[in-house]
Amino acid sequence: MPSWAIGIDLGGTNIKTAVIDEAAGILFEDAQPTDSAAGPDGVIRQLALLASDLYQQASESLDAGDFAGVGLGAPGAVDAAQGMLSYPPNLPGWGRYPLRDRLRQRLEEAHGLSVPVLVENDANAAAYGEAVYGGGSAFRDFMLVTLGTGVGGGIILDRKLYRGPTGTAGEIGFMIIDFEGSSVHAGVRGTIESLIGKERIVELACREGGEQGLSPRLMQLCSLNVDGLSPRHLEQAAREGDRFALQIWHRVGEILGVGLANVTALMDIRKFVIGGGISAAGELIFEPALMQLHRSTLPSMHDGLEIVPARLGNKAGMYGAAALCFGSGQPPGSDA
Amino acid sequence: MPSWAIGIDLGGTNIKTAVIDEAAGILFEDAQPTDSAAGPDGVIRQLALLASDLYQQASESLDAGDFAGVGLGAPGAVDAAQGMLSYPPNLPGWGRYPLRDRLRQRLEEAHGLSVPVLVENDANAAAYGEAVYGGGSAFRDFMLVTLGTGVGGGIILDRKLYRGPTGTAGEIGFMIIDFEGSSVHAGVRGTIESLIGKERIVELACREGGEQGLSPRLMQLCSLNVDGLSPRHLEQAAREGDRFALQIWHRVGEILGVGLANVTALMDIRKFVIGGGISAAGELIFEPALMQLHRSTLPSMHDGLEIVPARLGNKAGMYGAAALCFGSGQPPGSDA
Repeated sequence: MPSWAIGIDLGGTNIKTAVIDEAAGILFEDAQPTDSAAGPDGVIRQLALLASDLYQQASESLDAGDFAGVGLGAPGAVDAAQGMLSYPPNLPGWGRYPLRDRLRQRLEEAHGLSVPVLVENDANAAAYGEAVYGGGSAFRDFMLVTLGTGVGGGIILDRKLYRGPTGTAGEIGFMIIDFEGSSVHAGVRGTIESLIGKERIVELACREGGEQGLSPRLMQLCSLNVDGLSPRHLEQAAREGDRFALQIWHRVGEILGVGLANVTALMDIRKFVIGGGISAAGELIFEPALMQLHRSTLPSMHDGLEIVPARLGNKAGMYGAAALCFGSGQPPGSDA
Repeated sequence: MPSWAIGIDLGGTNIKTAVIDEAAGILFEDAQPTDSAAGPDGVIRQLALLASDLYQQASESLDAGDFAGVGLGAPGAVDAAQGMLSYPPNLPGWGRYPLRDRLRQRLEEAHGLSVPVLVENDANAAAYGEAVYGGGSAFRDFMLVTLGTGVGGGIILDRKLYRGPTGTAGEIGFMIIDFEGSSVHAGVRGTIESLIGKERIVELACREGGEQGLSPRLMQLCSLNVDGLSPRHLEQAAREGDRFALQIWHRVGEILGVGLANVTALMDIRKFVIGGGISAAGELIFEPALMQLHRSTLPSMHDGLEIVPARLGNKAGMYGAAALCFGSGQPPGSDA
């Protein structure tokens, strides 16, 4: 039985890599800025070098015969069966790129490493990581929702990834809940991301403050500079009991709850695992979200509704990419 | 190989039954008012008598050895694996009821018929019918959306029913697209059904008419009685080119398109089959819906978006219930 793998999370800013033992979790890890200026082939060289270095390091203590492969989570639309990455939003100029095969070739030709490589969408990889090692491990079916600069998600059904017919499933950030509203993101009106993406939460606070302005405590936290207000300030103020900040998080939770209600109505998913930087606000968001989720669904859908925090933070993608290499996950391409 | 089955569509108003040949479709059919006042056991007697009569009639020309079973579509939450019906909305007082086993017993004890029986949610049965025999037969993955008094749906993934973890998937009528709007249905604000359920379309026309009132042609069609206005009048006026009626359908299509966009974003489903009485308006709705579906999704999701009419009308449920009895469908309970 293979028992260790290399998990990679390819982001527009950083590449995070780890050696992951199937039972013990992360053994070694590394990270470095993505050399996106070098274009796809340059990034492939960087990825192969990182993976090869980690492999050598791990081989000193682990059996090469137990190596399951290199799993790579990447932004954008990924065709896992074909190993293709299409138009990654934070890696301009990549177009459609055969990420899996290029990385496999480079590992073999430049580093003498002939190993299995798989690629997966980063949000899907994170959801799978949470399913196997994190906040979703108790659930057969759930949706991971990541709240950060953007709002994204991945869906686990019957403990397997649901990728959708073309591999783009889970885009809860583009779910429309206010189709006539004034907020727009990426050209679409009234989406969840247009309402509670990181910047929008700050805007919400400024708007709600109105002429009266933010609360005294928030003004203090942002050093009287409203442009410097961040979700962290809102979180700190709310935890200190600042009523204005609490209301903002309450509102964010309600909006999230409406989005989750749509997932429940459509897919009958009743468990939600919430990750991403904004999810640090925890119960400040989760409680109003759960109340709203109940209000926004039929009583016949209320059984088992649950919202829990993700547990792997920004390591979920590495965990999931590695987990997909182990026999515990279905191989990419084995489902629709 | 079994090659014929009895398909039943149990509604709050009528019971529709048919003998369906796997290849040739409906051979005989029957319908009668649902004796809902008789309670669940009374309805079971009625269902068993109808099925038994059809079986006898069919047996004169068909081989009993080729009989695949009795498939029954029912309103409300159905646990297909357990054969349980829960709280059917149009059959008050049923609670949780072992529909499959009671019908099987009754067929055996009162009619000497020992045959397989399966039950399925009616919208799911209709979706499966359209998948095998109707508007969805060319699609591997699609959603059936039924526009009528209510708005409902059923989801087909990889040519199998997607029921969801507890069997309530597909409730697109409860998808919220206007969470702060004024329209409410069944206690939930801003749902698709609250906006374009049959009665709401008529209300929309009256509201849009405002103080000016409806168009002269519409006033003529409803005999100057606005309370008597129906979607049929709106359809007829629009087909005659009435600008006001065209605008109403355009609006209905746009709202539908927003809902479909959410299905695409979340599930990556890009094919939609539209049925139900309101869908008679056809292209009056489908064209604006498709335009809105494009506007409301990312360009990366546009490939393959399609909206087509359902083809089986109010027979889809019978077709689907029978088709589930054939080997072509997965047996209830074989998926999550």
